[in-house]
Amino acid sequence: MERILSNQNSRVKSWAKLATRKGRQENRTYLLDGWHLVQEAIKASAKFHAVMATSEQMEAHLADVPHGVPAFEISAEVAKHIAGTNTPQGIFAEISLPEKTFDPSYVFDGMWLLLDQIQDPGNVGTLIRTADAAGFKGVVLGEGTADAFSPKVVRAMQGSQFHLEVLQGDLSHWVDSLATNGLPVYGSELNPAAQPFQEIMPVEKFALILGNEGQGMQAQLAEKTSANFYIPLAGQAESLNVAVAGGILMFHLALGN
Amino acid sequence: MERILSNQNSRVKSWAKLATRKGRQENRTYLLDGWHLVQEAIKASAKFHAVMATSEQMEAHLADVPHGVPAFEISAEVAKHIAGTNTPQGIFAEISLPEKTFDPSYVFDGMWLLLDQIQDPGNVGTLIRTADAAGFKGVVLGEGTADAFSPKVVRAMQGSQFHLEVLQGDLSHWVDSLATNGLPVYGSELNPAAQPFQEIMPVEKFALILGNEGQGMQAQLAEKTSANFYIPLAGQAESLNVAVAGGILMFHLALGN
Repeated sequence: MERILSNQNSRVKSWAKLATRKGRQENRTYLLDGWHLVQEAIKASAKFHAVMATSEQMEAHLADVPHGVPAFEISAEVAKHIAGTNTPQGIFAEISLPEKTFDPSYVFDGMWLLLDQIQDPGNVGTLIRTADAAGFKGVVLGEGTADAFSPKVVRAMQGSQFHLEVLQGDLSHWVDSLATNGLPVYGSELNPAAQPFQEIMPVEKFALILGNEGQGMQAQLAEKTSANFYIPLAGQAESLNVAVAGGILMFHLALGN
Repeated sequence: MERILSNQNSRVKSWAKLATRKGRQENRTYLLDGWHLVQEAIKASAKFHAVMATSEQMEAHLADVPHGVPAFEISAEVAKHIAGTNTPQGIFAEISLPEKTFDPSYVFDGMWLLLDQIQDPGNVGTLIRTADAAGFKGVVLGEGTADAFSPKVVRAMQGSQFHLEVLQGDLSHWVDSLATNGLPVYGSELNPAAQPFQEIMPVEKFALILGNEGQGMQAQLAEKTSANFYIPLAGQAESLNVAVAGGILMFHLALGN
């Protein structure tokens, strides 16, 4: 097995570049950090390009890595460099980005979450994890939403990208297609002129749009929805964190499923 | 007005120390970063020790700062140093930590959130903000929970510390006192042997305990509760983020309030 001890090694440089969107687009791959995620990728039969681990981690896990995957032993220094953090677990994988094209014209059922310009990577990852937990079929990231395969989003998703569809898409096209196919599309607003969410009964198939942390959903999307609702606030806080609001709405709407 | 241009200035050094728990405990003060929080503190009549702002921010806001508060003009460099981030807004305040002692023996009503060893500052801050939004009366941080006045928690609270009680406390003592005073105390577990949360009806007064991100609530607390419940998950995610779980539970229980 090749041992890599220097951050100047060309492979290390290319792994470190996967922290950027440009690097991921050029290679069509992204990084998993930690055994939990690597294990989820193995279970999901993801396409592996490499496994990199410190000697300790390699010893603990090499037997579980699929045959034929190139394995590299790395130093603790290299592990920190790839992770971009000071305390990585010491095991990584480089796997393919999902290559799926997905046409919403063929979506006739399931629960779907549409993210409109949500910028914080932690929020995006937590929302995908929550959609998975609530039994959603997929999450569609519109233009302006944080990239789903950046290190911070990947950390917050905790492997949920292997359990549901995580897609880029034109939200306007998605909303039109789902509405044509008979799925109600719900928007969420900060505006108390909208409907309190408790008035919407759980349904089997639908789409829910969540909007930007500060500005909310784009007006052009709000106009296309079947209903727009808000979460009534009893206290003095002006708003909820978007991931918390999403959790409340998803678990309310999905309750019947 | 004194102008401060160097990070070596003794005042700057003491403000930077407020990023640590030790620094805050020694001074009995903490920092607010950004006009939104400073404004919330003014509205709440917090005890100000200083306002620090770049010339631009000072010009925009000095008129709104209470009379008699020492004001310091700082350079952009000093602002970054105090903030510990690269893009601060450029206005800060140093205010007193809440000095309140709070005896749960005298708590007979309201909704209370008890945080047991929740470590991530973003989760703690978001939970306090969510409790505020749901109309809770206070949040009690048990031993091992992230300090409520660290910069990351303060950022995530978004000023909610001025709207409800944010207290340190011995959770075991709180649970005993509230139960004696007739408030049901609900625990949350990851364990599906607990009760699904939908079976608990909204009530007017109660306490809700949320536990550590990985381990959940301490067993010694779980034994003292009126009921322990969990959020049934339909998908493959193993768990929810604790702030999302807290949001779902708080808004379910508080619905009647």
